[in-house]
Amino acid sequence: MQHLTSELDKNAVLKAIRSCLPPDRMTVELHEPFFSGNEWRYVKECLDTNWVSSSGKFVDAFERKLAEFTGAKRAFAVVNGTAALHISLKMAGVDMNDEVLVPDLTFVATANAVTYCGAIPHFIDCEERTLGIDAKLLNSYLKNITELRENGCFNKITGRKIKVLIAMHTFGHPTDLEPLAATCKHYHLTLIEDAAEALGSYYKSKHVGNWGQFSILSFNGNKTITTGGGGAILTNDEALGVRAKHIATTAKLSHPWAFNHDEIGYNYRMPNINAALGVAQMEKLPEYLKRKRALALRYKEAFADLAGVTFFEEPAFAKSSYWLNAILLDKELKGELDPLLKYLTENGIKSRPVWTLMHKLAMYRDCPRMDISVAEDIESRLINIPSSAFL
Amino acid sequence: MQHLTSELDKNAVLKAIRSCLPPDRMTVELHEPFFSGNEWRYVKECLDTNWVSSSGKFVDAFERKLAEFTGAKRAFAVVNGTAALHISLKMAGVDMNDEVLVPDLTFVATANAVTYCGAIPHFIDCEERTLGIDAKLLNSYLKNITELRENGCFNKITGRKIKVLIAMHTFGHPTDLEPLAATCKHYHLTLIEDAAEALGSYYKSKHVGNWGQFSILSFNGNKTITTGGGGAILTNDEALGVRAKHIATTAKLSHPWAFNHDEIGYNYRMPNINAALGVAQMEKLPEYLKRKRALALRYKEAFADLAGVTFFEEPAFAKSSYWLNAILLDKELKGELDPLLKYLTENGIKSRPVWTLMHKLAMYRDCPRMDISVAEDIESRLINIPSSAFL
Repeated sequence: MQHLTSELDKNAVLKAIRSCLPPDRMTVELHEPFFSGNEWRYVKECLDTNWVSSSGKFVDAFERKLAEFTGAKRAFAVVNGTAALHISLKMAGVDMNDEVLVPDLTFVATANAVTYCGAIPHFIDCEERTLGIDAKLLNSYLKNITELRENGCFNKITGRKIKVLIAMHTFGHPTDLEPLAATCKHYHLTLIEDAAEALGSYYKSKHVGNWGQFSILSFNGNKTITTGGGGAILTNDEALGVRAKHIATTAKLSHPWAFNHDEIGYNYRMPNINAALGVAQMEKLPEYLKRKRALALRYKEAFADLAGVTFFEEPAFAKSSYWLNAILLDKELKGELDPLLKYLTENGIKSRPVWTLMHKLAMYRDCPRMDISVAEDIESRLINIPSSAFL
Repeated sequence: MQHLTSELDKNAVLKAIRSCLPPDRMTVELHEPFFSGNEWRYVKECLDTNWVSSSGKFVDAFERKLAEFTGAKRAFAVVNGTAALHISLKMAGVDMNDEVLVPDLTFVATANAVTYCGAIPHFIDCEERTLGIDAKLLNSYLKNITELRENGCFNKITGRKIKVLIAMHTFGHPTDLEPLAATCKHYHLTLIEDAAEALGSYYKSKHVGNWGQFSILSFNGNKTITTGGGGAILTNDEALGVRAKHIATTAKLSHPWAFNHDEIGYNYRMPNINAALGVAQMEKLPEYLKRKRALALRYKEAFADLAGVTFFEEPAFAKSSYWLNAILLDKELKGELDPLLKYLTENGIKSRPVWTLMHKLAMYRDCPRMDISVAEDIESRLINIPSSAFL
């Protein structure tokens, strides 16, 4: 007799996960840093030479490595991904009472950065294939609610200008960038890629972060590589890049002694000591990505025959960083999500659901949004499982 | 025959400075970090235990040490002093189109943080005795331009509400806090202390940072102690402190797995690896302060008989950290400021003038302000000279 689909075999899920992990680890975190290279040497060099603060050779070296790896013309390092988003939105001209299209399924920083500009996030649904924005749904929605005027795209309902679309590569899986770029072109929107989770992810054989006017990365402690706290901005526009770096560095004009600033700036530059970690981590990135891909493959096999659960795989057009592996319960099993989270956690496997959807958060409840059915369905069925590179 | 007062003996100034510094150093920076303790050990411990990011035992330990040293009830560590100011202003309820009284003589971050809240900085003159806000001038100014209503203090000219006064302890010299606190009380303004430069400074035998509702510190690479980049918020209000920490930590609600945020938050927490530096530096702080005071005393003696130049001493009511030593040219010699800066710099002594006054910066030119004669006079005569703790 077949299992009732309303009953998930939680122990089988636990066993499938355990079978992919080193047997000696009782408790396995979701994502931990992995320091196996020159971290120690480079940080010591910072201390020995007194160069721990902003500016310094490791910041330059880290930025060069990031640009080289991603193929972007310029990269510059900031204190975190949120700061990178804030600067990118500023550079795109986002201002008081503008609207910015933001995936409803994202980490809260994506929406928060919009509010830092005095603008309003406008939430968009995603597709199950990529966990990113669904370009088709977006297009028909924008057709209904916007009006294209000479000076841009306006929300007919709120009267506000829509200036930017932020595309997010969820858990490292590239969103479908080409149709989104086409939508942006049609509606005169600036595209920003939130690639916080996607260092090492490729869209049609090119590294993500090369479609937006700006793209951002994160090196928080839970990311594929970490600088303690940190982020970066990528751009292929040399002039915009220079200006973005300027406003992220308190907009100080260069001078041997005078302190002069020509616009409102931010104190967002990454300290040299954090960049020292970054340089060492970048040296190891190809190895970490290989290890993470191998773990994803093991998960894929382990879940291949398990009823009620599907391992989330990269979209066909993409190569994912597999930053954070995910499984999806069958639709009939959504009631099992919380019990499964509890069961895994109790048994030493740290796991988590997706972020609470943006439109459900108290401060974003009244923001404009389209129908969010797909993200709501995913929210009720997705669980992230351990993904550290050393596993 | 006496020297003409319009001619400064630049070589004598250079010699006076050199006489206070170690003879083996050709080029002397304004302020460099000094790592002479457990920095290396603690940072290595972060790497060895994988705890480099936010949360972690060094963040807790650093915060405890800061609270203990300053006597504030709570301290919490953030990415830099600018972020600390931003959060403090938010907590004081500063909002769109409010006004905040800010010293005209300050680093640009003080004013920038006000604009991050959508508010407008309103610039106040200083006194030569402290380099901080002149409470007497401020009082007569506020008497003229404000109206006290039931719901607060309003600028009669702009119609905007004035909510906060930021008092800054310039170069570590405590501003005269009691009269400023009295002014704040009278005008229903919240007092915030910008103590970015004043760790180790005492006002009437109590550490600064205990008069404002919130006070902020900075641990940038040029400060008395450094964490690479970093800052902290001090408060004696337990409940406000908890809430400030919450919004600086993306306003995430505590839960074993769920991601829920109950208000717009910021990604401002200090990473553990930076806090590790901070703990080691705090262990050395008393020694560094002693060394800095000894250097200031040497400067004082060296400049005692030098015509045309006065070494800036802490106000009588205060004990200063002497973060950044300063000399003041006689009023007749203001034309010599730039030539002296050039001369010192060319001869290996890094020096600098005060910051360009806020009301002269392009983005703040049109902000409200009182007469700024004293700060303008000081700007034309003050030079900072090398002050590192290891000198």
